[in-house]
Amino acid sequence: LLSSEDLSVIEQILGRTVKLVARWFVEDGREIIEQAKSQKIAIVTYGDPLIATTHNELRARAAGNSIPTSVIHSSSGIFSVMGEAGLHVYKFGRMVTIMSEPQSAVSVYNTIFENLLSHSHTMILTEYRFDGSGEPFFLDPVEVFKMLLAVESDQKQAAFSGETFAVVASRVGQKDQQIISGKVGSLQALTFGPGPHTIIIPGTLHFTESEALGSFTQVIDPPSDNSDRVIQISARMVEQYAPKARAAVQQMREYLKGEKDATVHKGLSEVLDNAEYYIIDARRFMNQGKHELAVLSIGYAEGLVDALRFQMGINPWLPSG
Amino acid sequence: LLSSEDLSVIEQILGRTVKLVARWFVEDGREIIEQAKSQKIAIVTYGDPLIATTHNELRARAAGNSIPTSVIHSSSGIFSVMGEAGLHVYKFGRMVTIMSEPQSAVSVYNTIFENLLSHSHTMILTEYRFDGSGEPFFLDPVEVFKMLLAVESDQKQAAFSGETFAVVASRVGQKDQQIISGKVGSLQALTFGPGPHTIIIPGTLHFTESEALGSFTQVIDPPSDNSDRVIQISARMVEQYAPKARAAVQQMREYLKGEKDATVHKGLSEVLDNAEYYIIDARRFMNQGKHELAVLSIGYAEGLVDALRFQMGINPWLPSG
Repeated sequence: LLSSEDLSVIEQILGRTVKLVARWFVEDGREIIEQAKSQKIAIVTYGDPLIATTHNELRARAAGNSIPTSVIHSSSGIFSVMGEAGLHVYKFGRMVTIMSEPQSAVSVYNTIFENLLSHSHTMILTEYRFDGSGEPFFLDPVEVFKMLLAVESDQKQAAFSGETFAVVASRVGQKDQQIISGKVGSLQALTFGPGPHTIIIPGTLHFTESEALGSFTQVIDPPSDNSDRVIQISARMVEQYAPKARAAVQQMREYLKGEKDATVHKGLSEVLDNAEYYIIDARRFMNQGKHELAVLSIGYAEGLVDALRFQMGINPWLPSG
Repeated sequence: LLSSEDLSVIEQILGRTVKLVARWFVEDGREIIEQAKSQKIAIVTYGDPLIATTHNELRARAAGNSIPTSVIHSSSGIFSVMGEAGLHVYKFGRMVTIMSEPQSAVSVYNTIFENLLSHSHTMILTEYRFDGSGEPFFLDPVEVFKMLLAVESDQKQAAFSGETFAVVASRVGQKDQQIISGKVGSLQALTFGPGPHTIIIPGTLHFTESEALGSFTQVIDPPSDNSDRVIQISARMVEQYAPKARAAVQQMREYLKGEKDATVHKGLSEVLDNAEYYIIDARRFMNQGKHELAVLSIGYAEGLVDALRFQMGINPWLPSG
């Protein structure tokens, strides 16, 4: 947010009058395009100008009107926050913005989940609005946590809880910049003051990142691995189903001992042998990172065994003891 | 790469002598830390300084020696490239660097694949080295394409091919900046000149991104959706296996008509009913985005049916038509 002091500094540097315009004026853009047809127009803004879709679109409209444009890039708060928190830029997955509408938290939650699966960090930009009069509105980090916990209690994918290790960066680049990290449960009790606020949900921290966090931020709880909590759903399935399937095969082999008919015995043995091969395959696929094939194999093995159990009137869903 | 002209401009601005140091000097960092104990030391570099892990680590070491540090952030070429190409920052997934060692292409390929699955763009920074003497080394985009095509022919996940739509940005921020986009097959025939080069593999482009690409870059082939080509492996499995499983159930129902024993008939019918329920479940899970459960269900259904086919001496791997 530009202060009138900033404005006069800019005017001094440029040696001309600067017109302060509202957001809608740039979004609408018609007057800018119109004036740019006959004279040079410069738009001064904070951050890297092309991060805002508005500026990108304005530039495309200018091109459509054969108005040449050029951009002087500037430092962006996004990278500043990553660096100030001591985190590696390469470890960040897709970035998201959270708005105060509760619905907005669902896609943020899903992005956190996906990023955690690949051990990536998620940077969450929080909404702020300034209608030009009165105080600006900043979406509070505590409110963001409440919204995400509500999605977790609905989706239950272990992507966000009171145990989640989070970093809250407030007013980065200003004199009272503050970066605090800790468990969401602990952070919820704090007051973060005015924004802008940025929240980072780290995936798996490199040890140099944990060290840097300790050096540059107030760490109120030791960093933990949020990705650990969100093991691949498929990995969890194979871990959970493989021993059960193996036990079921064992159980069926016992039943088979009583089978006198050689043809039936051969047919059933073949089914059980195949089930065992597929359980082994599931683990091998898992180790190769081929999660879908692992899940397909374990499902197939279970199907083979349960088909026999259905036929023999054994409820396949009871523990096989 | 700093020219001697840049250097004298910096000296004029600072009003003091600037010492040009090699990369290893900063990586080693001991002399910097030592001198910083008794006097103020400033490191001037290009881009946002904290994007380089080296600077982050140096900062952590300074903190460990109770040396206060502060950072003046600057514009980063990474965001500049995204913006200059007209792409939205929010659409980018995890970023990667490719080195000239062929092994380096594997993790780059995997990152492209994962980003494409979530419709995200991948920014690939390419290696460059400068040992201080002679010409700098820049990894050429054509070489990068060759490396990634080699990984594709090994992994076959449809994440990279001659049809892949890619953006190559060369020398961004310099007077002879060039951004060209098109099919990899077409781009391979071009000469990109000296670096630094950045390659972007877009996921699903928003129409404003396609427009902006057209306005600001040389587009030699119309943009296409790279994510489309990499449908979720699980989605493909369910699409492929569900009709086969359904046909197999149908085939078994025909066999069942000849079964006179009421108990056997009941047991087998139950297996087939269950198989059908699970095929329906697989589609439902797929529509809910629960890919792993969908694959598990389709695998289970196949297992149920094949167990019967094994017992009856029907090869379940032959077409059931």
